[in-house]
Parts: sequence; structure tokens; C-alpha cells
Amino acid sequence: MKSLNIKSNIHNYQVDFKENLSFIKTLLKLEKAIFVIDKNVYKLYKKEFKNISKDKLLLLDAIEEKKTLKSVQKIYEFLAKEDAKKNITLISVGGGITQDITGFVASTLYRGIRWIFIPTTFLAQADSCIGSKTSLNFKSYKNIIGGFYPPHQIYVAPKFLQTLNKKDFYSGIGEVIKFALLKEKYPKNIDKIIDMVESLKADKNQLQIIRKTMSVKQEYIATDEFDTGKRNLFNYGHCFGHALENASHYKIPHGIAVTIGMIYANIVSCERGLISKKVFNKLNNKLLLPNIYMKLKLSYFDENILLESMKNDKKRVGKDLTIVIAVDNDIRAKKLDDLSFSEFSKTYSQLLKILEIK
Amino acid sequence: MKSLNIKSNIHNYQVDFKENLSFIKTLLKLEKAIFVIDKNVYKLYKKEFKNISKDKLLLLDAIEEKKTLKSVQKIYEFLAKEDAKKNITLISVGGGITQDITGFVASTLYRGIRWIFIPTTFLAQADSCIGSKTSLNFKSYKNIIGGFYPPHQIYVAPKFLQTLNKKDFYSGIGEVIKFALLKEKYPKNIDKIIDMVESLKADKNQLQIIRKTMSVKQEYIATDEFDTGKRNLFNYGHCFGHALENASHYKIPHGIAVTIGMIYANIVSCERGLISKKVFNKLNNKLLLPNIYMKLKLSYFDENILLESMKNDKKRVGKDLTIVIAVDNDIRAKKLDDLSFSEFSKTYSQLLKILEIK
Repeated sequence: MKSLNIKSNIHNYQVDFKENLSFIKTLLKLEKAIFVIDKNVYKLYKKEFKNISKDKLLLLDAIEEKKTLKSVQKIYEFLAKEDAKKNITLISVGGGITQDITGFVASTLYRGIRWIFIPTTFLAQADSCIGSKTSLNFKSYKNIIGGFYPPHQIYVAPKFLQTLNKKDFYSGIGEVIKFALLKEKYPKNIDKIIDMVESLKADKNQLQIIRKTMSVKQEYIATDEFDTGKRNLFNYGHCFGHALENASHYKIPHGIAVTIGMIYANIVSCERGLISKKVFNKLNNKLLLPNIYMKLKLSYFDENILLESMKNDKKRVGKDLTIVIAVDNDIRAKKLDDLSFSEFSKTYSQLLKILEIK
Repeated sequence: MKSLNIKSNIHNYQVDFKENLSFIKTLLKLEKAIFVIDKNVYKLYKKEFKNISKDKLLLLDAIEEKKTLKSVQKIYEFLAKEDAKKNITLISVGGGITQDITGFVASTLYRGIRWIFIPTTFLAQADSCIGSKTSLNFKSYKNIIGGFYPPHQIYVAPKFLQTLNKKDFYSGIGEVIKFALLKEKYPKNIDKIIDMVESLKADKNQLQIIRKTMSVKQEYIATDEFDTGKRNLFNYGHCFGHALENASHYKIPHGIAVTIGMIYANIVSCERGLISKKVFNKLNNKLLLPNIYMKLKLSYFDENILLESMKNDKKRVGKDLTIVIAVDNDIRAKKLDDLSFSEFSKTYSQLLKILEIK
């Protein structure tokens, strides 16, 4: 499959799509390269990585609680002792958390080192691996630290998805749906999106769908890499979604939180008369509710924590809350900065009803 | 004096040149602005800043030992509690250390916030305030952490230099000489550079000379902001200079270390036959040695520490050491990556002789 070439203000880069894992052999031969690998991925694919010598390999405990400057400093320390400085290559293998931590390292060590990234989750393959963002948590604030720095080279290999658990697979579906809704004319093409999701679930055309989802994202970042305008719209489903990840202590994975966040954003749209009730119901019943997959507990939905998290959204600009919503019957998203606390409370009650959470 | 407009891959920005400090009044009225000020500067210029409310002001202990992620995290914490997130403005006031710490914060909080910088040292005004670099120390490694992120707006006001101590003033002269040597044809224009330095010392034409020095730097960064080629040459005097700062425990200020570093680099050039003995002597006697200003102690020159620091230079690419040197009788600099340990030892002994350090 044809590579995707992505332009960036930092440095241009390339995504290669791989049917199997034999490309890893070539990477093992690279000089001055250090591997940082999610320790679970390493266990599952030990055969592929077994030839890396101990002093060139760091295993990462890639959990949300470790997405901090402390983990970053461990990697700095591991890399700084190498003789090669600015011309070192960091090769990281794992999902979004691995990407966030190692991307921050790559961008801030020696003011930027060469970085090769191999995403191993559906979410990282279809979405986060492109777009240049790095993120860390700081104290109770989610993702507030970070910058822009893309890998120099990305290898997407759906082979890795064979060991992914179902919940994380559905997490990827959430973002695929979001990009499809940002791209496709609605309601004309809603059935196309439903078919695509069914195809994904049947393990069909994964590489094609991943590439297509990336292409939608690529269009947006081409003109707004630094997220000062159009790219804001990627936050459709995310303003509430991030808050929900936080409130559930990350029991709800990112993409599923985004799916629920899209339902929430649609409630706000519908209440403001920006999408019709008919559109609202069809999106819920055909596309969003059927793809939540996991059982949602009442304890994940603490209103105070959710409100506090929404207040800490880095997109927030003033007194009220910020949310990206769908507008009209055409799913063109829009950023609102005037979601009042009382409007939040009211729309939030509706969400609990729709999700049947008691 | 006309503003300088600087193009950047991150965001374009502007330098305004100010004869007095009245511009600060306007900044005090900015909404959603937080001031981070070097505590010494605050004490000296309290009158100018006295109207900033306590919750909008953070004083910084701007010493080399505090140029760490720990200081960065204190500022994150102070800023994160504000309601305004991505649209907050950070206004920082101080020298290069203040710039390094607050620039790192501005670039990594909410993936980049608006940042206004007021440099208060000669070095920061004439050199470091433009060029986008941010730097932190990590463990024993100097400046290895950092990225690229310019202020959105810079105000240069030589009024601040009136309270600068002589040693720090000479520190600025070191960088001014370096940029002049990178720019002017030698030996034809050597006397022009000597005159310029004399004018600086007599407090004459400071604003003009600062602007001119900046313009030289601007030329280089216009084509190589991310320091992958031409901009390397700014490290003339710096490879050894950084090591010396470290070995002297920062008793030797940056620009003076750079002046000594230029002498050292010229020894390497001269030994390799890349500059003539005549040029070498004229540079030393007329321009470099007379502007060291401070007394140099033998204890600053521990060969082992110097060698270890040279090894940790982030520009180093392999087994040997890296140094930027002058070439020919025309001071065009060049980066060498093959300075062997034995060559270092030999040229280093010559430096001690020239500096008359026993």
C-alpha cells in the first residue's frame, strides 16, 4: 500500500503501511538507535525484538498514571549516557501513551532527535500517530503539558491488532467514527459509515480504513498543524470525553469516552436547535450507542469531577465551558465557548438517561 | 527605532526597541496575563512592577542551578490554576536563565501559550532573546533539554543595563564579538569590530549595536531555525565555552566563557593550519584577551571536567569531540567532529599558557 507523506512545520514525515512485521528486522540493524517499548507489547512480540541488546532497550510501563515528567526523565537519563547525542535515533513501540511519553522526550532532548514510531493499538494507528502532538499529565491536569513534534517515520502494521483486547479495539472505532462524521456529508452518507464500522469489526479492510481515516486527519493538519483553528474541530467528542476518562479513572478508554462525548455534544447541539431530533436519534441508535461496547458504571459519572475536568480543558478561554459540537444536519463541527455551568448540568442529566445509567 | 520582524516556523514575532520603560504600563493592563520576573530584577525595578497583583506575579530565583524541570513545574502549577487556559499570556522579565525556564514553560503548557519576553541583560538583549531556543539542565548535563519556541513579542530596553554588573556586561560583549566575527570580512574589518566594542564600553550606540547584532543572527536563523546546518556556526566559542562554564561552576559567565572558547577554537584552527599565526595573534591581543575582564582561577580549569563536558556536548556525533572553529583568514566558521582526545589535551595546554593560568 502506498505510503502517506505528511507535511509538517517541524519536519516532513512518512507513514508506511505493512502487512507483516518483517520490517522490524531492518530497524534492529540501525546504528545509534535506542528502543523504548511498551512492556506488554515486548512480552507479546518478544520474538521480533529479542535481538536488541540490553543497553539499547528500555521497557515502558505504559499506563496513564505514568504519563508524567517522571517517566520522561527516566528516558532522558537512559539516552543521555549514550556517546551519540543529537544524532541518536529513538525507536518507540506501543500505543498512545508510549507515543505521548516518547514523543515528548524526542522533542525536548537535544532540541529534537530522530524518532521512529511503531503504533501498536488501533487508536494510535488510525489517529494519534500523525498530527505531531505530544502530551503529558501534570498533577490532576490531564494532557496539559506537551508540544508539537511528529515522528520522522511511522510504520503501521495491523498485525499488532491481533493481540489487542476488544475494549481497546472499540476505543479505536470511536475515533474512526469521529473522523468519518467530520468528513462525510450527513445524512446522505451515514449508512456508508455504518458499513465501514461493520467491516472493521469483521477484520476486513483494516489497512484501507486506517489509511482513509488518516487522510481525513491529514487534510485538517495540513493547514492547522498547531491547532489554532480548524483542527479544534477534532475535539468533537473530546471536551466531555476527556472529562469522562478522568472521572472514570481511565476505566473508560479514550475512544469509547469520545463516543460518549459525541453523544453528549449532540445533546447540547440538539438543545440549542443546531441539529434536529431525527438526526440526533439516528446518530445515537445506529452509530454511537451500539459502539460503546463496555458496561458503564454509575461511579464513572461523578458530576463534580466531570465539571472540574471540563473547567481544566486547555481549550477553555473564559468563565464558561468549552465544547465542540455538531451543527446543522451536516456534521460540521463548531467550537462553543459559552456552555454555562447550568446548561452543563441540564444536558448532563439527559446523557445519563440516554446511556441508561442509574 | 524600527521594530525587527522575525519569521519563524513556529510563529512570526516582533522585537520592539525602547528608549525608556514606559511600555511596561501598557503590559500591566493586559487581561489574562501572568508575570514571571527574576527576583533581582523585581527588586531593582519594583516601581515599574508594583501594580501587579500577588496572584498574577511569580518571582523566579534565576540561577543556573535552578534551570531545571523542577522550576518549570512550579510555574506550570502557578499558571494551571488560572481559569483561562490556552489563551493565557505569560510575560517574563529577566536574563537568559529566565528566558530558558519561561520559554520552556510557554512552549510546553497547553502546547504553547502566548509569551511576551523582556530581556534585562546585555546577553539576552543582543543574542538569546531571538532564535527560538529554550534550554534546561538535566542532572550533570548542561542545556540538553529544550526545544524551539520564540516569544510572540520582545521588548528590548537598554535602560535595564544600567543596573547590570560589569562582569555580565562583558558577558554580552563576548557574543557581540562572535556575531561580528561571523559577519565581517577579516582582516579588513577587524578594526571596525574593535571600535564597536569600545563604543559599547563607553555606553554609546547600545541600541544600534544590539539591533545590528540581532540582524546578523536573524540572517542565519531565517534559513536554519532548527539548527541543522548553518546555525551550527553560532557555536563558535561555545563547544569549549559551555564546558568551561560547567567546570567553573558557572563562576565564569556565559559570554566570557565564549570569548575564552573562541581563543581555544582558534588554537585548534591555528594548529591545523586553518588560520595563520598572524591572524591568531591579532585576534587574541586586540579583541579577545582584552575583553575577558575577570580574574581566571586555576580551579576553573579542571581538565577532566572540561573533557567530560565536551563529551556531553549535544552536537557531538561520534567517538571524537566536536568543535566549531574559524577557517582561513576569513572568519568563516566550520564544525569539526574529529577533535581527538589527545588533540584536545595538547591544544588545551596552549590555552592555559595564553591565558597565563598557572
